[in-house]
Amino acid sequence: METLFDRHRATLEAALAAARDRGFWSAYPEVPSGKIYGETAKDEGLQAYEARLNRPFSLPRHPATGSVGAEVSPYGPALGISYPANGAETLVAASLEAAPAWAAATPEARAGICIEILSRLNRMSFEMANAVMHTTGQAFAMAFQAGGPHAQDRGLEAVAYAYAEMTRAPKSAVWSKPQGKAEPIVLEKHWRVVPRGVSLIIGCQTFPTWNSYPGFFASLATGNTVIVKPHPGAILPLALTVVVARAVLEEQGYSADVVLLAADRAEAPITAALVVHPAVRIVDYTGSNAFGAWVRANAGDAQVYTEEAGVNSIVIAATDDFKGMCANVAFSLSLYSGQMCTSPQNIYVPRGGIDTNEGHKSFNEVAGGVAAAIDELLADPARAAGVCGAIANPATLARVEVARGLGRIMRDSETLAGLDGARSATPLIVAVDGASSEVQNEERFGPITFVIAVESGKEGIAKASMLARHKGAITAALYATDETLIEEAADAFASAGVNLSVNLTGNIFVNQSAAFSDFHVTGGNPAGNASLTDTAFVANRFRLAMWRRPKTGK
Amino acid sequence: METLFDRHRATLEAALAAARDRGFWSAYPEVPSGKIYGETAKDEGLQAYEARLNRPFSLPRHPATGSVGAEVSPYGPALGISYPANGAETLVAASLEAAPAWAAATPEARAGICIEILSRLNRMSFEMANAVMHTTGQAFAMAFQAGGPHAQDRGLEAVAYAYAEMTRAPKSAVWSKPQGKAEPIVLEKHWRVVPRGVSLIIGCQTFPTWNSYPGFFASLATGNTVIVKPHPGAILPLALTVVVARAVLEEQGYSADVVLLAADRAEAPITAALVVHPAVRIVDYTGSNAFGAWVRANAGDAQVYTEEAGVNSIVIAATDDFKGMCANVAFSLSLYSGQMCTSPQNIYVPRGGIDTNEGHKSFNEVAGGVAAAIDELLADPARAAGVCGAIANPATLARVEVARGLGRIMRDSETLAGLDGARSATPLIVAVDGASSEVQNEERFGPITFVIAVESGKEGIAKASMLARHKGAITAALYATDETLIEEAADAFASAGVNLSVNLTGNIFVNQSAAFSDFHVTGGNPAGNASLTDTAFVANRFRLAMWRRPKTGK
Repeated sequence: METLFDRHRATLEAALAAARDRGFWSAYPEVPSGKIYGETAKDEGLQAYEARLNRPFSLPRHPATGSVGAEVSPYGPALGISYPANGAETLVAASLEAAPAWAAATPEARAGICIEILSRLNRMSFEMANAVMHTTGQAFAMAFQAGGPHAQDRGLEAVAYAYAEMTRAPKSAVWSKPQGKAEPIVLEKHWRVVPRGVSLIIGCQTFPTWNSYPGFFASLATGNTVIVKPHPGAILPLALTVVVARAVLEEQGYSADVVLLAADRAEAPITAALVVHPAVRIVDYTGSNAFGAWVRANAGDAQVYTEEAGVNSIVIAATDDFKGMCANVAFSLSLYSGQMCTSPQNIYVPRGGIDTNEGHKSFNEVAGGVAAAIDELLADPARAAGVCGAIANPATLARVEVARGLGRIMRDSETLAGLDGARSATPLIVAVDGASSEVQNEERFGPITFVIAVESGKEGIAKASMLARHKGAITAALYATDETLIEEAADAFASAGVNLSVNLTGNIFVNQSAAFSDFHVTGGNPAGNASLTDTAFVANRFRLAMWRRPKTGK
Repeated sequence: METLFDRHRATLEAALAAARDRGFWSAYPEVPSGKIYGETAKDEGLQAYEARLNRPFSLPRHPATGSVGAEVSPYGPALGISYPANGAETLVAASLEAAPAWAAATPEARAGICIEILSRLNRMSFEMANAVMHTTGQAFAMAFQAGGPHAQDRGLEAVAYAYAEMTRAPKSAVWSKPQGKAEPIVLEKHWRVVPRGVSLIIGCQTFPTWNSYPGFFASLATGNTVIVKPHPGAILPLALTVVVARAVLEEQGYSADVVLLAADRAEAPITAALVVHPAVRIVDYTGSNAFGAWVRANAGDAQVYTEEAGVNSIVIAATDDFKGMCANVAFSLSLYSGQMCTSPQNIYVPRGGIDTNEGHKSFNEVAGGVAAAIDELLADPARAAGVCGAIANPATLARVEVARGLGRIMRDSETLAGLDGARSATPLIVAVDGASSEVQNEERFGPITFVIAVESGKEGIAKASMLARHKGAITAALYATDETLIEEAADAFASAGVNLSVNLTGNIFVNQSAAFSDFHVTGGNPAGNASLTDTAFVANRFRLAMWRRPKTGK
């Protein structure tokens, strides 16, 4: 009989090769095309999404001591979905009950199940796109890609790393120690993978699947049971994930409770009770630095992997493609209205301007060039809506309002004409002087950009990398024509633990982080202590235990 | 010019292969033989050791704001050596000063330097043996092996794992993303290893080199600077290590302060100030659970790797070699007077006795058989001294005194006739009943063994594995003839995170853990959160940082 491992072996092997080579590779097509996903897939996905609205979400055999759910689409309507609710103790008890059989499964069995889950999620990508769109505010195309195939690729990447690590040591070996002229001492040794225990995944609102799948699949593949704690505003995408995972687990003879949903309400969160629970041995967290610090301090001896926040910067020292640069930066600032963990916030520009292919450009001309490129990008309302999407959280609008008063407005934020009833905001650009202003030195999440006057590109690099070191940063970008300066920037940002993109123009952006090639977050500054996905992200989710004895009958 | 990496490449490659295969392999011969180390090596080692006594230890160019040192040999004499003393701030400042150049060295350069250090330490193994003997109390042969070649093998193992992990991702890659009929997007990407920062190694008294070398070399190889904090009673072995490391570093053009010694006195420890220092980003700790818990709770966001303590058990359910079993257990209990982290403390024996090749043996006959085997092993005073060595810490003798009153004495502890002026104690064996006694359920470090009456081998396995889960354990042993019971034990001890040895007789012991084959400690119970050496032990000592840009001129 074909096992799930057999079925998905080629995918796993391709993923392992891609992770080694770090070139472009993807298992799940990012284009929302009928030719790939089926001509009826888009309509069916919408129907499936709509069928979930205004009723209890069906999670067969899931524990429930109550129900919760108050999701409201950033595009307007309430979702009206309720989910099973449980206290931390109920969830942990159910998780522990399901644990021994899952821990005893082979790495192959677990990898096969994980990839089957991903494969089914891939087929549901249009339904997931609607779910992600109406919880995060992402535009449809982005919700499809980031919530669907890109998240699935990140999940597969974690499975591949987990599988590689679980199988790095042999399952058994013969140890034969010479004893001079006497017979050698010969032992047979056997190793097995022992998972840590219950794994808690704490999701965020803006990228509920993309940021959760690496931890989810890394923990699941290594034999841990998983409790998924979604953001109260973005439960549906993870509930869909949980229902698929539970179905595959049950079909394969495991308890569905290997994967549990910990839905809660913002006013009565259960996250803290789960984090401090002694049976919770792994915590994956995406969210603010403030709660991240609490998680790190209070998770006890659990392994904690975080993606928190930081201040991402662009340094503009020179360019030989001024229009291309402005268009590229404009898109990076506009995409999902700056609500990506990779969105730039600070743009450092020399006070005296820069050299370009269009001649010298003053500070104001550079800032104005970016502002004009945003205006052009967002001129068509439908396209603007497709780039910016909606604003996930009302607090973001309040931050935009505050930021208006922090400097000289170079481009004001506006609501999107094409999005009736939605919460929306286009990029705000505020100019400040780096010699006197401090307002740019903290994270202001959302469509808020500071263009900061500095002495030189060199000073911009120094300020941006120093800020990354102290406040965290996930991305940095540089526009420069001097190779020495590029090398200095590569050194400075590497020391600060930031990945750097240089001279991006055209259809590739600093915000983008590709599975199997880009390690997302370095783990080397306050923006997060982990990287998606490297060996360190998986190697400590399980331990190896050995038994040995004298080998007889060689 | 031959680099150190060239010189040691074959050793590194052999180590990498051995770590993959997990069979027997060793780079540094364990036999203290003149044929291997030179006919004059033993005498010269003793002379070199004696030349260190009663004077300041020479550490050229090492910071010093004072001096400390009050080591007293467990064999009697004070060493009279003083070492440079510094506050935490001085050490951290010097370490940070040395850091950038070391961080910028290639993985190859660092691996070459690390293996050169190990190679020179190997040539000093006789001097090291004397240093280890007179700080730990180990007998000479053990001090040579555990303090010298075995520790060096563990260090090399860490270098190999670190090198494998630093070179797992390519240094650069080309990422080419298809764009339908348009030209692909092509980026060049470059990655580099970024160390975490200052690494603190906290050594223990009983195995100052063996337990410190894995963390020391893992951190050094991955580009971190290292501050070595020895136990105040066992400074010399690590001071010798530091002096060798500093010499190699300077010869290769790096600051000697990449490696620093943090000697202190028991009455004025500086460990806590180093642990909480924000620049200290990695802590390797070997020692008690009590201080280990403090380190884990107070190291902030530093990576913490610990080997703490636990209660190791033997379960005797049956044997087809009663004499061989008793002799093997006797040696395990006697070796270094039970002062190994791998020494067994508890022996579970069925109340109704066991089946053996010599017929049925009662509980008393089993306990008596082990006691008699110890008496036989230690009958010759010179051999007894060579097996037991001396007692490192006076507190151990006090624990033996307390343990005498905790049950029925089956074999009393005695001083060693062959060791005049030394602190010594042979194994104490106390019988208790598992149904009523609790005294065996905590660690009582030293030559203290409880033989515990239980219902059956099965119950012994349950009790021993439960104890391991809650109090920690590094080793477990089982004597059994029933394959089903052996499988059950393998499951139970694996779940509890303990490595299990089954039916050992002859010249191989549960206490022994061989580099490149045995993963020492699983990290899966309270006896330690790390394993020596697996991928998890090295992968998070550095991070990868990338820079990327459009690829031109394909």
